[in-house]
Amino acid sequence: MPKGRGNLFVVSAPSGAGKTTLCRELVMNDHRLRHLVSHTTRQPRPGEVDGRDYTFIDEAAFRRMVDEDRFAEWAQVHGNYYGTALDRLTGALEAGDDVLMDIDVQGARQIRKRDLDGVFIFIAPPSMEELERRLRNRRSDSDDVIRRRLAKARDELSCLNEYDYLVLNDMFEQALDELRCIIMAARLRVGYIPPGYGLVT
Amino acid sequence: MPKGRGNLFVVSAPSGAGKTTLCRELVMNDHRLRHLVSHTTRQPRPGEVDGRDYTFIDEAAFRRMVDEDRFAEWAQVHGNYYGTALDRLTGALEAGDDVLMDIDVQGARQIRKRDLDGVFIFIAPPSMEELERRLRNRRSDSDDVIRRRLAKARDELSCLNEYDYLVLNDMFEQALDELRCIIMAARLRVGYIPPGYGLVT
Repeated sequence: MPKGRGNLFVVSAPSGAGKTTLCRELVMNDHRLRHLVSHTTRQPRPGEVDGRDYTFIDEAAFRRMVDEDRFAEWAQVHGNYYGTALDRLTGALEAGDDVLMDIDVQGARQIRKRDLDGVFIFIAPPSMEELERRLRNRRSDSDDVIRRRLAKARDELSCLNEYDYLVLNDMFEQALDELRCIIMAARLRVGYIPPGYGLVT
Repeated sequence: MPKGRGNLFVVSAPSGAGKTTLCRELVMNDHRLRHLVSHTTRQPRPGEVDGRDYTFIDEAAFRRMVDEDRFAEWAQVHGNYYGTALDRLTGALEAGDDVLMDIDVQGARQIRKRDLDGVFIFIAPPSMEELERRLRNRRSDSDDVIRRRLAKARDELSCLNEYDYLVLNDMFEQALDELRCIIMAARLRVGYIPPGYGLVT
């Protein structure tokens, strides 16, 4: 990887593991870390701004981008399409920005095929019992939905070996520190040192 | 690498980069990190305890261990021999301890050949000018010694590409945090999780 190129971090986790909050906290406290704006075919919700929250496009335009291989990864969720534009991702990395992608196991697989040399991090709940407890505490999902989420979590956990790092989200601050360390360590890899770092020559 | 096996960290640095203080601080604040007792042929200094500071042996015994390939790495420094016994190193790692070795570029090369799957960290001063300033501030070395140390530092820096990580010791606390993160990240690698970590199954 050429010098001056940013680091790509791909984070996956079963629903309920706390990934969204952890990723938000990381990006908020790290000015070198960027979250890319995804494309989606779903309708904007009140308050959402095109180009800030998502790039909103129609299904025909989305499909055209898929056909032209212009997504680094994409997925269909509840009938809507979501995707990360490849040129946005490579553009950010080439500009030397670090990018944090918060995507599922399938999306991570698509990224791995792109040979972008990412750091793949899996966030897991401390145990299946704890995950079930968390999902039930939300009080928003039916037993049936919870059962399906747990089965999906088990599936996702079986993909752990595709990842470089495992962070167990038992205590939030500990998990956040671990993620921060994985990101810092990646930046200190020999060969990944950005220009202007004061490298001895 | 089998589960339950400790991580090996190998740290090298030019003289004056601050390696010794950083390593001492790391081991003091991390109960999972061990510093192994080396063998040496030099005479014990007042206050040094055999088996705690060093294992003191005579030259014939040292040479026998070299011939029997019982050192993970060894070197001759100012006429005395120093070495890390291979069985001590593998014993600690197999017991699940993490080991921090503070050795020079040549020693690190010997370890690399052992296929022990270590994490190799290079600590460097922020610049050659700063290194020279630090060496002069010690007021203990002659101009000639300083010149030799600087030439050696340049040689060692040219081996940077053999290492996994580069930590610039500009501000001590920052360098310490970076080292701590490299160690933490290594422990979070998928496949290196020690037993009893609460891994989801």
